[in-house]
Amino acid sequence: MTAIGVPLVTGSVGLLFVLLLVREVLRSDPGNKVMVQISEAIQQGARAFLKREYTYVSILVVVVALLIALAPMLSGNPDLPLGWRTSVTFIIGAIVSALAGYIGMSIATRANARTTQAAVNGGVKGALGVAVSAGSVMGMSVASMALLGLAIVYWIFKEPVIVNGYAMGASLVALFARSGGGLFTKGADMAADLVGKVEAGIPEDDPRNPAVIADNVGDNVGDVAGLGADLLESYVESIIASMALAAALVAGAAVKDQLMTLPFYIAGAGIIASILGILFVKAVGRKNPQAALMGGTYVAAGLTAVASFFIIRMMGSDFTIAGKTYGVMGPFYATLAGIASGVIIGFVSEYFTSGKYHPVKKLAESSQMGPAITVTTGTAVGMESTAVPVLVLGVSIIIAHHFAGMYGIAMAAFGMLATTGMVVAVDSYGPVADNAGGIAEMAGLDPHVREITDNLDAVGNTTAAIGKGFAIGSAAFAAIGLLAAYMASANIQVADMSDPKVMAGLLVGGMLPFLFSSMLFQAVSDVAFKMIDEVRRQFREIPGLLKGEALPDSATCVDISTRGAIRGMIRPGVMALVVPVVVGLYDEKALAGLLIGAVVTGVVLGIQTANSGGAMDNAKKYIEEGHFGGKGSDAHKAAVVGDTVGDPLKDTVGPSINILIKLMSVISLVLAPLFMRG
Amino acid sequence: MTAIGVPLVTGSVGLLFVLLLVREVLRSDPGNKVMVQISEAIQQGARAFLKREYTYVSILVVVVALLIALAPMLSGNPDLPLGWRTSVTFIIGAIVSALAGYIGMSIATRANARTTQAAVNGGVKGALGVAVSAGSVMGMSVASMALLGLAIVYWIFKEPVIVNGYAMGASLVALFARSGGGLFTKGADMAADLVGKVEAGIPEDDPRNPAVIADNVGDNVGDVAGLGADLLESYVESIIASMALAAALVAGAAVKDQLMTLPFYIAGAGIIASILGILFVKAVGRKNPQAALMGGTYVAAGLTAVASFFIIRMMGSDFTIAGKTYGVMGPFYATLAGIASGVIIGFVSEYFTSGKYHPVKKLAESSQMGPAITVTTGTAVGMESTAVPVLVLGVSIIIAHHFAGMYGIAMAAFGMLATTGMVVAVDSYGPVADNAGGIAEMAGLDPHVREITDNLDAVGNTTAAIGKGFAIGSAAFAAIGLLAAYMASANIQVADMSDPKVMAGLLVGGMLPFLFSSMLFQAVSDVAFKMIDEVRRQFREIPGLLKGEALPDSATCVDISTRGAIRGMIRPGVMALVVPVVVGLYDEKALAGLLIGAVVTGVVLGIQTANSGGAMDNAKKYIEEGHFGGKGSDAHKAAVVGDTVGDPLKDTVGPSINILIKLMSVISLVLAPLFMRG
Repeated sequence: MTAIGVPLVTGSVGLLFVLLLVREVLRSDPGNKVMVQISEAIQQGARAFLKREYTYVSILVVVVALLIALAPMLSGNPDLPLGWRTSVTFIIGAIVSALAGYIGMSIATRANARTTQAAVNGGVKGALGVAVSAGSVMGMSVASMALLGLAIVYWIFKEPVIVNGYAMGASLVALFARSGGGLFTKGADMAADLVGKVEAGIPEDDPRNPAVIADNVGDNVGDVAGLGADLLESYVESIIASMALAAALVAGAAVKDQLMTLPFYIAGAGIIASILGILFVKAVGRKNPQAALMGGTYVAAGLTAVASFFIIRMMGSDFTIAGKTYGVMGPFYATLAGIASGVIIGFVSEYFTSGKYHPVKKLAESSQMGPAITVTTGTAVGMESTAVPVLVLGVSIIIAHHFAGMYGIAMAAFGMLATTGMVVAVDSYGPVADNAGGIAEMAGLDPHVREITDNLDAVGNTTAAIGKGFAIGSAAFAAIGLLAAYMASANIQVADMSDPKVMAGLLVGGMLPFLFSSMLFQAVSDVAFKMIDEVRRQFREIPGLLKGEALPDSATCVDISTRGAIRGMIRPGVMALVVPVVVGLYDEKALAGLLIGAVVTGVVLGIQTANSGGAMDNAKKYIEEGHFGGKGSDAHKAAVVGDTVGDPLKDTVGPSINILIKLMSVISLVLAPLFMRG
Repeated sequence: MTAIGVPLVTGSVGLLFVLLLVREVLRSDPGNKVMVQISEAIQQGARAFLKREYTYVSILVVVVALLIALAPMLSGNPDLPLGWRTSVTFIIGAIVSALAGYIGMSIATRANARTTQAAVNGGVKGALGVAVSAGSVMGMSVASMALLGLAIVYWIFKEPVIVNGYAMGASLVALFARSGGGLFTKGADMAADLVGKVEAGIPEDDPRNPAVIADNVGDNVGDVAGLGADLLESYVESIIASMALAAALVAGAAVKDQLMTLPFYIAGAGIIASILGILFVKAVGRKNPQAALMGGTYVAAGLTAVASFFIIRMMGSDFTIAGKTYGVMGPFYATLAGIASGVIIGFVSEYFTSGKYHPVKKLAESSQMGPAITVTTGTAVGMESTAVPVLVLGVSIIIAHHFAGMYGIAMAAFGMLATTGMVVAVDSYGPVADNAGGIAEMAGLDPHVREITDNLDAVGNTTAAIGKGFAIGSAAFAAIGLLAAYMASANIQVADMSDPKVMAGLLVGGMLPFLFSSMLFQAVSDVAFKMIDEVRRQFREIPGLLKGEALPDSATCVDISTRGAIRGMIRPGVMALVVPVVVGLYDEKALAGLLIGAVVTGVVLGIQTANSGGAMDNAKKYIEEGHFGGKGSDAHKAAVVGDTVGDPLKDTVGPSINILIKLMSVISLVLAPLFMRG
């Protein structure tokens, strides 16, 4: 098969598989009338959010596409390799990401009550099947559609400098999906907790709480659609970076061509392997869900690795970058380095954030000293957790580069992402199970049902941790790959750190993730503020609400979250778009410094915030299991404060930083021709 | 006068001035018996801490000195330009810093009750005089002794590669003084607040609280001795970096010599200008203390700038670095860029942390939503506050480099530090006034006295903010200057960011400030834990303590803080010492990357933590002034949690990060010969 045939065929197979999964989910029992009502409320909320989000994003996409199309004219340089063709790939990238998110979320919000009902009808067995299928719709949509779209764009336009626009489109949508989703979900979550649990003293997911539907919508918006868009972006960018680097650096037309198309073959293998992995989970899962999820991940990764070995061996050859010759199997070792670092980062995250290990236990213990010490210790845990992942990344960079030069670094990213279908499936399964539990609670089902769904949710956590490791690790590698591609495109031979412009760029770049995070924190607080006021108002003004005799006005809460999320995205979105352009126009080396500075603090701050938040979340759960006084104790109250502080850290700020560094890098890559000194 | 004559004479004049100030402080009325007792308890505690700290530091200094002396033998390279002479300068640097800290703290702890008594006898007038004199003892000791020591070392050894050891000695002591002091003071402070204010419901600084003396000792240990050692280090390092860069980079022996000795002349002018500034404060202060402190700072800075102008004009000439020729006045413009950035950073810090402006008011308002939102908003404020300072640093780097190359960056640092004597005087004045207030409280004096001292304390805050800006800005410039000197010494022509080892170094370096901070957070929590237990035990077991009928056992609390601070220093101290050595031995370019990575995140994280902490502190004070319900309201309770979270951020972690990046840079500079590839 040709380099285009493979992704076209495997992408189509992946989409066919998605259709089968969708049919399976929709055919399962949607549950009783109350459950259907709740599920529909969540669906409506999610749709309303997506609709408004996509409206704003499309305006932005059109504006940016116009600017790209007019760039040759505006810059007074008609030969500039930007223009309408890059606009087209940019728009296609944005549409693909938006569409994958829409499909995944539609099914996830339809699968939640069905998972609950499957737990009622068939216990763990049935519930696992529905939840895994729903998660797999998201996962396989992401991988298949991203690959198909990219292959078509590449088929039509060929030149990397134009195809790059595709990644930028995907990245822009990802920023809004991830950060917007994170703002939506945590604004609602914090308010639901603060007013519901703390002030009104009603349990989590209680149907009397007006913010609960918004909270459940948020899980889908942030954890399903947001995560999918995030990994779709990394997936596309790691392929694009490999292609751009091969095109720019590798000597010899034939070898260059081989290395440019290599990721397509491996991606194709990854899609088939992911399908097999998902089938493995569905076949084995009925007995031991935990082992099945982990096993499926291993099956997919192992098959992809084996396939890569043979693909590279058969179609590759030795290649030369900047006068240095690398062996044919170099890219294979580079992908292994990437996969190994992703797994290690995942396990380290798990160690620092799971209630099974020392850090969270010690954090729970420190909660006895009050909320201030809880937050301080939680911050410390997250900070400590950055050490090993960053060391591992550093070592993997050196290894990947040793075996395949800069091309190897992009391939290391791609190693983690070839099985994106499987990774996203497992990650999206969690929120579906979580939603199912919420519906069991709200519909007043037997507590036994909730236990099943809680168990399903917990079972996915370890596997999801690996997915998180892949998301962080691949984002770092992809950003570095894009940066290298940018430097190659902008014809920067050397970015010397003792060049004052590079140094200033490094410092300013290092500051951007902090500024970006501050904007998100403020936005999430603003959403929470408004939501708290609204929930308090409803408790006060709707007669009989607290007694369960009247229904809350959930739609207004969804609306507040939606508006707040969109409004909150304006400042960080503009910053991410404008800063690289301004700095690039000032000096192309300063921009290189800025991008690296942003990667350095972005990676570290991203890991810290995600793990601080995760640790504080699980310390609260650990106490709720009965440790240090259990629910209602002073330690628990302190841990609830910690959890609330941690919420935006782990679900809004942490994951958004990944996108920030990728988006700024890909914008720089696309606009590199504009920044080059005549 | 010769290049050595100027620092010897001005340093001696500075020391003479210190003697006069000491005499003035010791001659003033020490107050009544109770006040003397309290003051003596603080003196004893401070002495006990310093004694134990210095014992451990001397062991470390001896070990490191031995290793440096034996380095040529151990490395099997007898020509290595390390050895006993570098050991000697290293030891002298350590002794000078330790001695300056000892003198400053001895007088500060003797001046506290005297300031209280002066407030009783002579109101604002008298109290200001004593407190300013005491602060000036610390400030002028730092500047005079550092300069004298450096001049003598330079006179004897001449070669920069040996003189560098002096800076490393000062840096090592600074790490322990700053971090150890920060751990001491905040462990005690957090415990005093949590058990005293929150649990027992007794006011701040209440004599019944066993941790209060430790808290007051901590103010001196951290804010006087720690700050002094910090700025002493920056002062020495900016001179050393200027000298090392001039020696390594400037073409032509005569011009090289001029530029190497230039900082000595400016430093001499700075000392005389600081003396005049202090005299200005003492002359004018009786009418308007705020204007006097600010005026004195301006007088010192202005005189130094004018003197620098003439010195550079008279003794300088055009000079050439790496083929590029810079004008004679280049270093002058570079120092101006440094001063301007320091002032701007200081004002930005003030804006984000003072109750007078929007950010803290909004933070106080958000406290109404509970402790979680307070901490989240406080974090956001600190993050936002990094933007302008980092931008300003970036621009100043470009400007300073434009006018005087890399030499200009070191001179920009020195521009902020030439008036160290004045800056430290104003900064140390605050804790003396603060302690004086504590003593007024504990001694049960008329509330009017406390009002005077509180007012004095508040008056110094704006001026101190500029000092903080200088500390942060100069640390960044000094670290970059040292890094450039390291690269020159290690014969690194280019540290290209797309070199994988540099890139890995950047990432790992970027992680170190986070890891270092996590260690300090954990240490401060450990101290607070133990202290909380002890205070609870004393309230429980000492009969009549809470009724005020029995005295608390303050000495045990001081001992807990002392032991905890020393123990807590081991891990971060070892990390700061060992990591650059290990990485340098692996690859000298990876070390360059590591140092820059650490500077990038260190600067940003340092500003964020300091300002988050400062904002949360002042939001609490703002509420205590009667806003949003005032003392005892829910908003106030939330703000107290925020303040407690902020305490270690602003006084332990934030300032220590400055030292970390400087210490790692200076170690690299000293050991550069060891890392060079044969």
